[in-house]
Amino acid sequence: MKKNFSTYIDKLQSIISTQIKNLDNKAKFKIDNWKRKSGGGGLTMAIENGNVFEKGGVNISKVFGTLPKSMTKLLNTNSSDFFACGISLVLHPKNPMVPTFHANLRYFELYENNKLKDSWFGGGLDLTPYYIFEDDIIFFHNNCKIICDKFNSNYYQNFKKKCDAYFWNEHRNEARGVGGLFFDYCRETNENTIENWFSFITELGNNLMDIYLPIVTKRKDMNYNDQNIDWQQIRRGRYVEFNLIHDKGTLFGIKTKGRIESIMISMPPQAKWSYNLTPKKGSKEEKLIEILRTPKDWI
Amino acid sequence: MKKNFSTYIDKLQSIISTQIKNLDNKAKFKIDNWKRKSGGGGLTMAIENGNVFEKGGVNISKVFGTLPKSMTKLLNTNSSDFFACGISLVLHPKNPMVPTFHANLRYFELYENNKLKDSWFGGGLDLTPYYIFEDDIIFFHNNCKIICDKFNSNYYQNFKKKCDAYFWNEHRNEARGVGGLFFDYCRETNENTIENWFSFITELGNNLMDIYLPIVTKRKDMNYNDQNIDWQQIRRGRYVEFNLIHDKGTLFGIKTKGRIESIMISMPPQAKWSYNLTPKKGSKEEKLIEILRTPKDWI
Repeated sequence: MKKNFSTYIDKLQSIISTQIKNLDNKAKFKIDNWKRKSGGGGLTMAIENGNVFEKGGVNISKVFGTLPKSMTKLLNTNSSDFFACGISLVLHPKNPMVPTFHANLRYFELYENNKLKDSWFGGGLDLTPYYIFEDDIIFFHNNCKIICDKFNSNYYQNFKKKCDAYFWNEHRNEARGVGGLFFDYCRETNENTIENWFSFITELGNNLMDIYLPIVTKRKDMNYNDQNIDWQQIRRGRYVEFNLIHDKGTLFGIKTKGRIESIMISMPPQAKWSYNLTPKKGSKEEKLIEILRTPKDWI
Repeated sequence: MKKNFSTYIDKLQSIISTQIKNLDNKAKFKIDNWKRKSGGGGLTMAIENGNVFEKGGVNISKVFGTLPKSMTKLLNTNSSDFFACGISLVLHPKNPMVPTFHANLRYFELYENNKLKDSWFGGGLDLTPYYIFEDDIIFFHNNCKIICDKFNSNYYQNFKKKCDAYFWNEHRNEARGVGGLFFDYCRETNENTIENWFSFITELGNNLMDIYLPIVTKRKDMNYNDQNIDWQQIRRGRYVEFNLIHDKGTLFGIKTKGRIESIMISMPPQAKWSYNLTPKKGSKEEKLIEILRTPKDWI
């Protein structure tokens, strides 16, 4: 499984980065192959200052070794020998009418005395708009549901709920964005083989760009003004807050001494903070906040 | 002591904010009186878009109640009834030749069965330049030392070391800035009464602006270009990373459900992230990084 998934994410990285480059039609990916001192490494592909994408990355990492105590605690395990690999994707578009997109697909193995003790898949995808276009959000969630339903009619509801719970900026009392799917510890059970999970994850992976890029294409040439950019940057500040305060992926990367520039690729190109900024009543900005305060069912 | 220090920080907030307003000569402070649901509150004074200061705040908070488990663990105590008050100050100047300044003076009490169990002072001040002017840093550290030496000839060395250790951006392997003083758990001991600590803290408080404002006055009208602003914003990104990933004050504020806009007042007005940015060899930007990698003795 380790080998299968590892091969799969390599291919996916190549396909996705090509699609992004073609749509952007200006920026090229910087490619960095990096090694991790205590085991493994990765391939980071970063894009900046494009026509469509202001900043983003498509990263692969495959790391192994010994987990630090803080991580074994977090995973609630005694096993500290691990292997983890995944593909991680963040795209910050230039136009504030285009939402930011994030996706991650990962596989984890734990060992005791060199024997496989536990293994699971995890991952998800979520959308972070600056302005609300309900059609886009419904399109996004509908496509998530279509993929989920191929496997289990409960997946969409479960993973949508988990996504809303995970991408919750507790200290702001609002969601990071309008959600999507989030799942973790997808293990072999009586009902599910690890191969089933592999099929589900790869089906998601194969469809990531078909779920997101149509939204980009639809909105990328819309007009916007300085005030829209200001709002985008304020909201990007919240994205930064989530990733640095709450995100377990960022924490895992930092604690396991991953390559910092690859971890921080999720940061937006620019962010703003303004003291106690409150959107005007009835404004489009206020509408966003209302939706982020109480996650909706989009289907 | 609770009453004495509480009265002292109120006065200090008023004096410091007046000095800042006078120097800035454009921006006025927004003043917000806030209450904390589970006990206490604060007075937040925020400044934005000034001639000299792009963003900053002088905050008082006085909070009490029950500590969440994560905080009793952090403080390594069984007592969970607490009182905490302090003044906190962050100034982000507009001109990238002027360093950012932060200071915090705080007092903490822990109770068991309504009896005072433990009490201590903590605090510090530190300087975060974007470009290195050694004169300014030496002036800053010299003044810190002069105040420390009035009380104990070991304080400066001890608290300077603690400052370098505390404001260390572990995940970047560099300091946040060029340090200053940091101290915590300053308790009554055989050598020191809590009144001695009060004298030390208030002496620091009385001199905060005399340590920092001369540097501002000296640098605020220097020329700068777009590249300097870009660098300032990249470095402000590191300031954000420190405050959201490592800073215990921010964590304490969030965990004890303080007023979020008052906690986040330390955020810079704008920050940038650029993938794997490395300053040119021999540049002023590279000089800053070199100094941040291996904290220097400035005296």
